[in-house]
Amino acid sequence: MTTVPSPNKEIEAVLVANQAFYSAHEQRDLVAMEAVWEQGPSCVCIHPGWPILRGWDAILNSWTRIFAGPGRNQFILTNISGSVRGTTAWVTLDENMMDQANTGTIAATNMFVRTDSGWRLVLHHGSPVAQRR
Amino acid sequence: MTTVPSPNKEIEAVLVANQAFYSAHEQRDLVAMEAVWEQGPSCVCIHPGWPILRGWDAILNSWTRIFAGPGRNQFILTNISGSVRGTTAWVTLDENMMDQANTGTIAATNMFVRTDSGWRLVLHHGSPVAQRR
Repeated sequence: MTTVPSPNKEIEAVLVANQAFYSAHEQRDLVAMEAVWEQGPSCVCIHPGWPILRGWDAILNSWTRIFAGPGRNQFILTNISGSVRGTTAWVTLDENMMDQANTGTIAATNMFVRTDSGWRLVLHHGSPVAQRR
Repeated sequence: MTTVPSPNKEIEAVLVANQAFYSAHEQRDLVAMEAVWEQGPSCVCIHPGWPILRGWDAILNSWTRIFAGPGRNQFILTNISGSVRGTTAWVTLDENMMDQANTGTIAATNMFVRTDSGWRLVLHHGSPVAQRR
């Protein structure tokens, strides 16, 4: 018998995976970051202002460099919304940067696929929201 | 009997839908733009520098305003790559802006879902790629 999770349970699981991504980022924890991603050739990461990174090797390299850099990234996450369609989910949210070097809001898209071992990140795209003047 | 399209055919169909999005944008054709999108509450659009727009009404409103504005957007699309997983696909590419008011490159994510009437856009996210100095 196959148990089909209810939509609410599905969304909850996706949002837990989404939170794990930000926890890994805040804690600069590369092992935790690795566990968040699907780690395949279809993975895509577009950091704010960066060109497109495709495939797990390029993405892992970027996180290694980011975590080795100065400063910390701390976020207050707001305006979170997720949708599930089949075995794919997309979450959009505002990353409100709280550290001294970076302030402002990043609009982010995180796309997850459901695997046998849970939801895994396949795409992250962040872009600065222009300040209203 | 159910015919399962081959992965290559799937990707081709997704890239045709992706091209239709940019054709509608370049031609400022609101009817064509409407046909590209799924038009549901799960749709998300993040224009470069804009806050997150969710749901078809907000997205349609944004295209109406963009098409009513001055200037045209013309793109040369490069670095296009697509992946299909089940009934969902994601395409990433560089939008190289060619009009006088806007130059530079936008890194874009376009996410599609397969419907009974073909692939429909559910998420567009564009972000400026910082110029290397």
